Order: sequence, then structure tokens, then C-alpha cells
Amino acid sequence: MEQRRVYLDNSATTVVDSEVIKEMQPYFSDIYGNASSFHYFGRQAKTALDNARKKTAKLLNSSSEEIFFTGCGTESDNIAIFGILNAYGEKGHVITSRIEHHAVLYSCKHLEVNGYEVTYLDVDEDGVVSVEDFKKAVKDNTLLVTIMHANNEVGSIQPIEKIASELKKINGKRKKKIYFHTDAVQTAGKLYLDVKKLGIDLLAISAHKFNGPKGIGALYIKNGTNILPIAFGGHHENGLRPGTENIPYISGLAKALEISNAKIEEYNKRVFALREKLKEGILNAIPDVTINGSGSRAVSNILNVSFNYIEGEALLLMLDMKGVAVSTGSACAAGSSGPSHVLSAMGVNPVASQGAIRFSLGYHNTEEDVDYVLEVLPKVISSLRSMSPVRNQKTFENKE
Amino acid sequence: MEQRRVYLDNSATTVVDSEVIKEMQPYFSDIYGNASSFHYFGRQAKTALDNARKKTAKLLNSSSEEIFFTGCGTESDNIAIFGILNAYGEKGHVITSRIEHHAVLYSCKHLEVNGYEVTYLDVDEDGVVSVEDFKKAVKDNTLLVTIMHANNEVGSIQPIEKIASELKKINGKRKKKIYFHTDAVQTAGKLYLDVKKLGIDLLAISAHKFNGPKGIGALYIKNGTNILPIAFGGHHENGLRPGTENIPYISGLAKALEISNAKIEEYNKRVFALREKLKEGILNAIPDVTINGSGSRAVSNILNVSFNYIEGEALLLMLDMKGVAVSTGSACAAGSSGPSHVLSAMGVNPVASQGAIRFSLGYHNTEEDVDYVLEVLPKVISSLRSMSPVRNQKTFENKE
Repeated sequence: MEQRRVYLDNSATTVVDSEVIKEMQPYFSDIYGNASSFHYFGRQAKTALDNARKKTAKLLNSSSEEIFFTGCGTESDNIAIFGILNAYGEKGHVITSRIEHHAVLYSCKHLEVNGYEVTYLDVDEDGVVSVEDFKKAVKDNTLLVTIMHANNEVGSIQPIEKIASELKKINGKRKKKIYFHTDAVQTAGKLYLDVKKLGIDLLAISAHKFNGPKGIGALYIKNGTNILPIAFGGHHENGLRPGTENIPYISGLAKALEISNAKIEEYNKRVFALREKLKEGILNAIPDVTINGSGSRAVSNILNVSFNYIEGEALLLMLDMKGVAVSTGSACAAGSSGPSHVLSAMGVNPVASQGAIRFSLGYHNTEEDVDYVLEVLPKVISSLRSMSPVRNQKTFENKE
Repeated sequence: MEQRRVYLDNSATTVVDSEVIKEMQPYFSDIYGNASSFHYFGRQAKTALDNARKKTAKLLNSSSEEIFFTGCGTESDNIAIFGILNAYGEKGHVITSRIEHHAVLYSCKHLEVNGYEVTYLDVDEDGVVSVEDFKKAVKDNTLLVTIMHANNEVGSIQPIEKIASELKKINGKRKKKIYFHTDAVQTAGKLYLDVKKLGIDLLAISAHKFNGPKGIGALYIKNGTNILPIAFGGHHENGLRPGTENIPYISGLAKALEISNAKIEEYNKRVFALREKLKEGILNAIPDVTINGSGSRAVSNILNVSFNYIEGEALLLMLDMKGVAVSTGSACAAGSSGPSHVLSAMGVNPVASQGAIRFSLGYHNTEEDVDYVLEVLPKVISSLRSMSPVRNQKTFENKE
């Protein structure tokens, strides 16, 4: 009998929607020109590129010339951070949070090595930064703020609008503008992204997080933003990002965003119900469990749970043997040692952090998927805890 | 009646091979995991990634750990150049040629702005650098040599093996190794790329130039090379290139290289015959024509022709109206003004450079395609020359 498979790692990546695959198809073998070429084949490609840019722009409530296609979310974040700072041409201060994705976090670490000062804002127990902390962090030489829209491990949504509103007041009193970038990789397709309402200057998204293809991202850059490229070559993407345009994926990104935006309420309703069912089921069936972060302050699809006295990786592997795919945190951090920097920042103790698992739901998950997880998970936990030296030690300590 | 279309711009980009499309297909909706995830879906993706890396490595005569997938040829070049120089951590001297693709040329210009010294080697009338010039250019503080394998406008093949051999002797007498990178974007699928035989340390390729998809490149980096990443995020590609791996395109690149390598002799025989037919046809039918570069020292598929007393762009547009797609040079330089930097370096005079057209053939072109071009081209040239103020002035001068 074939193993039943339940994919609950949709924050790592998603299946490509069949409509998106259909959208991309003609650009491989039919409309295959280089969008920079001036002939018929080039113009066909350029038209597809323009249409995808228009569609993406509209969905983000921006204008076409504010949308730049990149190779991935990480590249979007890198262009945003280094592009803005290089354009300043002087070293200064950057504000970020302690819970950023490594694309931002390691960029900031690199800045520190190169003479920049970086403030990493703390988060509360739900994984949310404080607007007051942000205000206090601003310095005379602050050049850039980069805070994610929602966290990839616990789903916590950051007060981007409020920070932007405070920043606007601060910028009103300064000669040199502080730019505001947000990594919205985990919110595209889950929250309506309105760049004007958010009030940010730059925003990064990645198609493969909302049922588009892997290897394509977009970066919104507000008109009038002073930014320089971080790689050199052709004049593509208005001189900001060189490299022949990937028309199939660019069209796929736009289509995926269109589809996911069109069903955003249905998605959230559906996925939220599944997550609550999963959460309640876990809490009812398994003792010594902590939910990391508050569902009410998070995107609908992420449930981060600590199963105390268990190694998250062991749990991941046991669940995988039962056909259930989850993660211990970010796929991009897979292989790195130590507890999650996100859970640490939230004050989760090392024992709980060690046993943390991220369930991330997607549009394609069903009630049956959750039922199956709730069927196998308690047994797996029980089996792992019976073998756990940490748990046994705890029991021993309790007996003393 | 529908316009007949003849695509002769294969150096700008190529149609994706149907076998390559078939190879990529399962990775959109079936095997869609994140290759960094530790579960079944992730392992499936990781297996595909490993297989593509092995295949690519074998085709380039390297080992798997020497192959790094990137977002495009331009990114490969940028990682090679800035990655090597950043790892040195000191500013020094770089040797390149005057005829590089903008991905290398503009990277070198950026280096100059940032305190590096760059020597741009001259080329002869066929667009080939001299090994002697290279030897003379080496300085005590030289850190990197970056010379393309074949030029994208005229197809001229550079003496990479000979330069590498001289460099090996030079490096033998130095403490600090001078690294050698080659942009092989125009030779992959046209020449067998054997990194050991070539003797280089780094080599960049881009799938869309050999009937693979746009938006994926690879970089060979010899074991033991000291290199740093130029973007920051996850640990992907052994820490060198962050961003979730684009499994469909990575598999597509490997497949496209496999297919094109398998038929490389057939390709060259076929494409060379078409090019010679086109060249002879043009020379026989049209006066005041110069062939730029020597076919015998170039890849088989590029024919660069100057039609004197004509604007290349006007010719491109007129040919496009007849359904024939060609270019005036690099698609990546489209929109930039002034004569081609490649033709200028070869000593082509401005009048001839202005009227230069690149015909670049592909595997899918036929004798009928060439016949059609030879049918329409003389009429178009004749018509354009009759309107040309430059030509008329010439005629007037001749009369004096």
C-alpha cells in the first residue's frame, strides 16, 4: 500500500497551481523571444513582461514602474537593503528585528562587519515588535528600517502600518529620509498587500510561497526612491537587475498573485479552520505542549508547537515516516545548528524550542489531512517521549 | 496570409527544447518540495537537484561540488568576479578584454570606481585577444583574469587554454594565485566545455543560450578556490548563492546541456553550413558589405555583417517587417546608444559599425530560412540605401 502523504510545509514552499502552469507554458516554446530584442519575437516577450508587471503592480496597489522582477525573495531583500545603503554612499545605522528571515538577518550581519551599526528590535512573547521600541531605536544616522511583514516560523504579523506612520512623522523632521523595507514573503497571498496602505518604500515577495514557481521574486520600490543595483550587466528591469527576463516565471508570479488574491478570504477561512482544528486536536490529545505565538496576531496558515522533552528533528523524521511533512523552522535555515533565533527572541525556553515544529497549511490541505495528523501525532509523541533522556531526567527530577 | 517568421537571433535567446520542457514538468506540481526540507517532499527535490548537479558536472568534466546553480549568466559572472575579489579582501588589478559581455564589462567598470585597476586587453581585427598582450598585462598586484570564451556579437573564440597555460607558469612563481574566470555563455552547446582542458578556475554558463529556460545559470568553481558570496540568506548552493533552489529550471539546464552536448557535432555541421550559405549569398548579392570577424576563428552560429551606408536599426526593423528576426548586437545592450564596443575594439570604422547586423543561427533553422533571408535581404538593403543620406552624400563626393 502506498504511503499516505500530507504536506504541511507550505511556508517552505507550495505546489504550483495548475492555472499558473498553464499561464507559463506558451513562453517556453511558442513566445520565446528575448524581451530586450526589438523584433517581433522580442516584442511578444516584452508584451508579456509588461502585462505581468501591470498585473503585479495593480495587485499591490502600485504603478508598473515601481515593480522590479528578481530571481527570488532573497535577492529582492538583498537589492532592497544593499541597494538603498549603496545609494546613500555613507555608512550609518539600520533598524531591523531579531526575528527576520536569514535573507535580511545575514544581510544585516554583513553590514555590521562592514562598519554599519544595526539595531535588532526585540519581540514580545507572540513574536511581535513594539512600535515604541522602534521609535526609541531611531538615531540621527539611521538610513534604513527593514522589518518583515509576517514571520516565517510563527506567522506573527508586525505592525508595519503603525511603524510606517511613525516613520513618516520622523522623516518629516529630517533632511535625510529613512527608507522602510518590508519582507512580505510570508504574507503575499495571505493578506492583501497594499503598498500605499502599508506605507513602506520597498516590499519583497516570492512566487513559490503563493503557489507560483520557485526562482522568481518581485520587489516594489516606491517612485523617487534612491537605489543602486547590486549586480552589473544589461539594462534590464530599468537598470536595477541585470539578466535576461524570465518571462514564463514572471508571468507565473503575476498569475499566482492574481489567483491567490482572488481567493484570499476563502483561503484564510479554510486554512484558519484547519489550523484551529489541528491546534485543538493537539492540545486535547497531547500533554506538555505549548503553542508558540498567538494565532490572533499571526497569518492564518502557520501553527508552531513545542512538544516538550522531544527533539524537533526526531519528531520531523518520525512524522515523515508516517507521510506527514512538517518542519522545525525555516527550510532556509535547515542544517544550521542551535535553537531557532525566532523562538529565542520570543523567550521560548531552550527545552521547548528544541521540540518546536512548524505546521504550515495550504489551500490544498483538507480536513482528512488534519484528521490523519491527529491520528498519528499522539502515538509518535508518546513513542518519542518514552525514549527521551530529557523527559526521563525530568521525571527523575520531579520525583526528587 | 500569415507572415513567415525566421528567427535568426539565437545568440540572444533560444526556444526551449521540447525534451527540456518535458524534463521540467514534474517539478512544478508533482515533485514540488523545497530541496532544503528534510522530509519526503524535500528529499525528492534534493535528489533532482543532486542529479542535475552530477549531470552538469560530468558534462563540464568537473566534480559535483564544483557546480553552483545561479539565477542567470550575469549572476554567475558577478559571483565569479566579486566573489573572488571580496575573498582577497584587498584591492588590486584585474585583466579583462575590451569585448566582454556587459555582465563582465560593467562589473569591471564598477571595480574601477571602487579603487581597482583594470586592464582591458585589445583584440585583433577578428576580435581575438593576444596571449602576448595578456602576459605583458600581468602585474604584481593582479588578482583576477576574466576573459570570455567566445564573443556574443561576432563569435570570436578566445585563446583560453593558451592564456591558462601561461597563467599557470606565472602562478608557479607567485605566492598569491591569480584566478582565471571565463564567461562561456556563448560556447556552451557549441564547443565541448572541458574545464580541466580549458585550465580555468571559474566558468559561467546560461541555459537559455542552449535551448534551456531563461533565468537559470551555472558557475563552475574549481575545488580550493577562495570565494565569498555576494548575497546573503540561506545556506543554499554550499553557502555561495542563497535562495530556494529552482528545481524545474536546474533540471532543465542539465537536460539542455546534455542534449546540446550530445548533438554538438551535428549542430556545428548543420549551423556552419547554413551560415556559410547565408554569407556567400549576401556577398554575392549585395555590394559594399563587410563580414566582421573571421568564421574560422569563431563559433559556428554567428555571422556579423556590416552593410555600409545603412543604419543597423533601420535594417533590423525592415527585416522584422518581412518576418526575419536579427539583432544589431547584444540584446542585453539594446537601447544603449553609440556603436558596438566589440566592433570598435576590432577596428571596424564607425560607418560600417553603424550598419552591422548579427545573424545568429540555431539548431531549428533550415535551408528554407536562409533562402528566404537571401530573397528579402537584397531588396531591403537596396531600398534602404536609396533613402540613405550617408550613401547619397558618398555618391555626391565620388562625383566630385
